[in-house]
Amino acid sequence: MKLSKRINGIQASPIRKFFKYTEAAKKAGKKVYFLNIGQPDIKTPEVFMEAIKNDGREIIEYGPSAGTPVMIDAVRAYYRRYGMEYGEDDVIITCGGSEALRFIIDCICDFEDEIIIPEPFYTNYGAYVKSSGGRIVPLTTTPENGYRYADKEAIERLITPRTRGFLLTNPGNPTGVVLTPEEMEVIGQIAVEHDIFIISDEVYREFVYDGKPMSSFGQIARIADRTVLVDSVSKRFSACGARIGAVLSKNRELMDNILKLAQSRLCAPTLEQVGGAALYGLDPSYFDETREEYQRRRDAVCEELLKIEGVVCMKPPGAFYITVKLPVDNAEDFLIWLLREFDDDNETVMFTPAEGFYATEGMGRSEIRIAYVLKEADLRRAVQLIRLALEAYKNRKS
Amino acid sequence: MKLSKRINGIQASPIRKFFKYTEAAKKAGKKVYFLNIGQPDIKTPEVFMEAIKNDGREIIEYGPSAGTPVMIDAVRAYYRRYGMEYGEDDVIITCGGSEALRFIIDCICDFEDEIIIPEPFYTNYGAYVKSSGGRIVPLTTTPENGYRYADKEAIERLITPRTRGFLLTNPGNPTGVVLTPEEMEVIGQIAVEHDIFIISDEVYREFVYDGKPMSSFGQIARIADRTVLVDSVSKRFSACGARIGAVLSKNRELMDNILKLAQSRLCAPTLEQVGGAALYGLDPSYFDETREEYQRRRDAVCEELLKIEGVVCMKPPGAFYITVKLPVDNAEDFLIWLLREFDDDNETVMFTPAEGFYATEGMGRSEIRIAYVLKEADLRRAVQLIRLALEAYKNRKS
Repeated sequence: MKLSKRINGIQASPIRKFFKYTEAAKKAGKKVYFLNIGQPDIKTPEVFMEAIKNDGREIIEYGPSAGTPVMIDAVRAYYRRYGMEYGEDDVIITCGGSEALRFIIDCICDFEDEIIIPEPFYTNYGAYVKSSGGRIVPLTTTPENGYRYADKEAIERLITPRTRGFLLTNPGNPTGVVLTPEEMEVIGQIAVEHDIFIISDEVYREFVYDGKPMSSFGQIARIADRTVLVDSVSKRFSACGARIGAVLSKNRELMDNILKLAQSRLCAPTLEQVGGAALYGLDPSYFDETREEYQRRRDAVCEELLKIEGVVCMKPPGAFYITVKLPVDNAEDFLIWLLREFDDDNETVMFTPAEGFYATEGMGRSEIRIAYVLKEADLRRAVQLIRLALEAYKNRKS
Repeated sequence: MKLSKRINGIQASPIRKFFKYTEAAKKAGKKVYFLNIGQPDIKTPEVFMEAIKNDGREIIEYGPSAGTPVMIDAVRAYYRRYGMEYGEDDVIITCGGSEALRFIIDCICDFEDEIIIPEPFYTNYGAYVKSSGGRIVPLTTTPENGYRYADKEAIERLITPRTRGFLLTNPGNPTGVVLTPEEMEVIGQIAVEHDIFIISDEVYREFVYDGKPMSSFGQIARIADRTVLVDSVSKRFSACGARIGAVLSKNRELMDNILKLAQSRLCAPTLEQVGGAALYGLDPSYFDETREEYQRRRDAVCEELLKIEGVVCMKPPGAFYITVKLPVDNAEDFLIWLLREFDDDNETVMFTPAEGFYATEGMGRSEIRIAYVLKEADLRRAVQLIRLALEAYKNRKS
């Protein structure tokens, strides 16, 4: 019995690799600050559990494959606020944004078809594309250029007859980059000229800072036929374990085919949709508070990072991640050393080496991703630990 | 922009096709008995909601990708009762049995690889195999032969160098067939000789009637390396909307690779796992009651079916479906006529034409599937309606 080539091409989560080191550090009595987690520490709004507790049904039955009407309407009402009018057949509720992405890619990719993705990118995109037998074509960005990617020439160089779509996260994970309206125009123009889909993963939509408005590809009418949005309650409402997401598009053929895949897995969780509808129905003021909290955290992290000599980073305009180039040859080696050899006052720190966010071999080796989902004071201390560790690491080597 | 060939090969759910007819019948004031539904009408055990209500967590966070330890242990304890000892790494919790099946097929199938499936089969298997780019090789069975399929010669005729697995539902949907231990030996032997996987979807495991024991492929030690079980709370605990399933196997390489796919979609729903663990923890006596109820229903349906001239069926030993050959050329035409033209005392009936359960063109046209998930009296009346309708249909044609 042999397994499929496709599955052998997918990486196991790198978290496991570091698990033994963090466990050993904790066992040795060290306090570890975890900067590697994408799980917000903000409480899930109480309406979620309240709605579930009050649901009262006696049989937890299948819901409609496209989602319950109440859930779909809640999503539509949320989008309407941003001037995006989606019909009831333009929204399909999924088991998290992950399932939305798999459905989309399965619908547009045949074996060896290509999806362009700016790198560094959310690692799981690799699994979705490879599961479908497709190929990722990375659009390389650099810390020196602030990880921006809306470069017409660079994108067009990557387009081939097998290109099916351009997949991006906006605001970005792991970089925190937010596209400007002009950049979105550039990408939209390319998609029209080369007749490809734009798959815009906007799960971090509400996390845009400095009072700036957030733009969505869903707001550009002339590319509505080729735009597919991915949405989720996970980050927006700190409800990652609810596994409620959505795909939105006005491309009828695409949505009819995504519905076939939705039917094949019957439905998204029934109770979680009850809770999810309550979350989408929250007053917009809910986001103001969480946004302010994350902005404070981002500012604290950046302030501390700027105190470190040799670090390359920009203040990210969105999401709750920052990708940083450190003055080390190999961030993974540095991390293992941090966990095994280093402590300051019996404390150390864990982050995500960024190499795994790149598809291009050898890229990102000096970079790391920090998720700022801890309290401000903890974040400051954690970045200070990186600074102290870098000094010790340098001396150790010389 | 064009969509993938794979997606174009997947059928939309046939339910939609008949929806307009059932709606029109209801609008015309007819009562429709629905025999087409796989959703049990039995209450979800209260422990499910109780466990969720008492959970008390403030952040609905990601769980481990393989499933929460409590949920995994509950599944293991359930299997231990049947003499099946699965280690903690041998169980991965999935979003329903559907996701378990997709994971397995993605792990073993490359483009154009083949999976043998006895037909008629659960329609969604088609979608899972086609999504992966693989091919279904149907092993045809007939109503006259009681839909049995463990025929060594017939199976071996279908095996090619591209065969990767044998996928079956036991007890069967839509046929209700339950494999005997001898039949399981035949299939196990073939799998060993031809080095293929056995994927055994055992979600109807507890529904085996007439006091007979239920055997699982998981009980045959010598094929443990090639056996993969699919499990789910949906039917067993009447909790279809919970979307909690599991894949179980002692093949380390397979499970390590399924875990990669599980990681790529982060986790199964957190709260539903809390409820799911409570369901698996129910006392075995829970099944006695539901089993008795379904057995009574099955007996009622069969009793009524035997009163119809020209019907071919056998009393199914398991699940809650029966596939029946009717004395009509085309069961779909008959169904549409039933919904549009027929009534008795202003009542009519809906069932599932079985053609969609066959991969072989033209097979199953005279057959239907009845799901016996209504109360006994309603089931009797519904089958009586089929009898009366058949008489009227015959007369209408002559």
